[in-house]
Amino acid sequence: MVTAKVWVLKKHFEGFPKTSDFDLKKIELPNLKDGELLLESVFLSVDPYMRIVESNNPAFTVGAFVVARSGWRTHFISDGKDLQLLPSSWPESLPKSLALGTVGMPGLTAYFGLLEVCKMKLGDTVLVNAAAGAVGSVVGQLAKIGGCKVVGCAGSDYKVAYLKKIGFDEAFNYKTVVSLDEALRKASPDGYDCFFDNVGGEFTSIAINHMKKYGRIAVCGAISQYNDSVPQKGPYVQVPMIFKELRMEGFIVTRWNNRWEEGLKALLKWVVEGKVKCHEQVTEGFENMPMAFIGMLKGENLGKAIVKV
Amino acid sequence: MVTAKVWVLKKHFEGFPKTSDFDLKKIELPNLKDGELLLESVFLSVDPYMRIVESNNPAFTVGAFVVARSGWRTHFISDGKDLQLLPSSWPESLPKSLALGTVGMPGLTAYFGLLEVCKMKLGDTVLVNAAAGAVGSVVGQLAKIGGCKVVGCAGSDYKVAYLKKIGFDEAFNYKTVVSLDEALRKASPDGYDCFFDNVGGEFTSIAINHMKKYGRIAVCGAISQYNDSVPQKGPYVQVPMIFKELRMEGFIVTRWNNRWEEGLKALLKWVVEGKVKCHEQVTEGFENMPMAFIGMLKGENLGKAIVKV
Repeated sequence: MVTAKVWVLKKHFEGFPKTSDFDLKKIELPNLKDGELLLESVFLSVDPYMRIVESNNPAFTVGAFVVARSGWRTHFISDGKDLQLLPSSWPESLPKSLALGTVGMPGLTAYFGLLEVCKMKLGDTVLVNAAAGAVGSVVGQLAKIGGCKVVGCAGSDYKVAYLKKIGFDEAFNYKTVVSLDEALRKASPDGYDCFFDNVGGEFTSIAINHMKKYGRIAVCGAISQYNDSVPQKGPYVQVPMIFKELRMEGFIVTRWNNRWEEGLKALLKWVVEGKVKCHEQVTEGFENMPMAFIGMLKGENLGKAIVKV
Repeated sequence: MVTAKVWVLKKHFEGFPKTSDFDLKKIELPNLKDGELLLESVFLSVDPYMRIVESNNPAFTVGAFVVARSGWRTHFISDGKDLQLLPSSWPESLPKSLALGTVGMPGLTAYFGLLEVCKMKLGDTVLVNAAAGAVGSVVGQLAKIGGCKVVGCAGSDYKVAYLKKIGFDEAFNYKTVVSLDEALRKASPDGYDCFFDNVGGEFTSIAINHMKKYGRIAVCGAISQYNDSVPQKGPYVQVPMIFKELRMEGFIVTRWNNRWEEGLKALLKWVVEGKVKCHEQVTEGFENMPMAFIGMLKGENLGKAIVKV
């Protein structure tokens, strides 16, 4: 018998999440049935990454590492479906936690969002906000590999320095610029072909006026709006969309589930070659998970926010 | 020497246009130079449709009808560039004013917007607002030809009756429904694949919540917002766009200038076969042009608003 620690949501968030919205419980797991596996969390993020502790399933060996979607918990019994083994070409020296970040779902979000939604092409000017985050930092680096000019915005001078270090052509702190409008114009006086939007809200209302004719906006996230009790309002988008003939598309990375392998293979290759740099914000201890989650929503992380169990 | 009557804009609109914003002037036209033509307006809309009165250009014969972009005026001297002759297959019995409507720019807007922006396909459910207008009425009929279910909204019971007459599956008066949200749900409980948006503003904010997963929104017009002195605000679009993975694209029909002939040929064929019905709101008299324009902005027209000189 194994005791699993599990974070549960005590009550639905009202406004911004608080640690008191979460409860840490202990549950006894039953013995394994045929075909089942016992998994132990090694790193957690919104998607947990696990190690197999016990296996009654011939397709998985004890000690293997998998990515699973099983909630915030230390142990988990699975029938083996929906578990993803790491790519076979994963080098021993590469931190396995990257499977939750640059070589995982956030990296794939950047990859498919840029290629399939923004339709990024050589010579484009690409704007990305929340650029020092798990997705944004990969967006900027992939756009550089693809021969684009990249402008990134982030919320601290430390993050801005990081963006310049990993190759962004222009980067600024949107919290300290006198005028976002002016900062966007200065960073690219000709405007932007692609805008990879992780933020939404007022940022987007201003950025939309800096798009070039036929510009493409990939709506990946709206972190400025997730915790609103009352939806915020801004200027309607139709008039600028018509006159500049803009395309705006929302997306969720699971749309490309059938191309997961292609994406991971490409990302892993660039990471191994050093063309894509990775940074992780690691919080130690399962008990600190709500704090890490709330810190991520507040933008305290540089790169992917990870919890080490 | 010919005297042309010309409507000029006395001052830029402040809020909704008024007839007092326009001035009717008379100007003397010079004699024709080599290669030039004298044109006389026969029907006018925002784009004027003209007849050639005098020609020093061998490519155009006196009496021919052309579509030109020369402003609100009775006569006009042209060098022959940018004049469009009617398609050679235009039947004698077909009103030539249709070249300003269903078999002209508004018809092409419907055609390319549905095919290239909405990517309409067999079996889709298509929503169109301002559906009794010059563009909307063609959108609905083309969608029916393409094997779709069509829902249209308009601003009077008379227009709604017209929409049902020309084959819309569902139509309602958005000004008299108790709840637009409820009316959209009732007209298509499963939601909409395509939304051809001529209106923008509050209508769009409500309609966006009725789109199906992967729905496509063609932003053709924003008549609810053209005359605002201060831009209106509404809920941000990012959250519904992400969760339903919607695509929204603004467009101007001139993008397909190189496919003009293809579009006109298709539209003319459907009109001649009776598969697309046309209605025109004809105002008599050049002096009534501002009134016709303002009436169109107020939605007083059924089908294309035309001024007969």
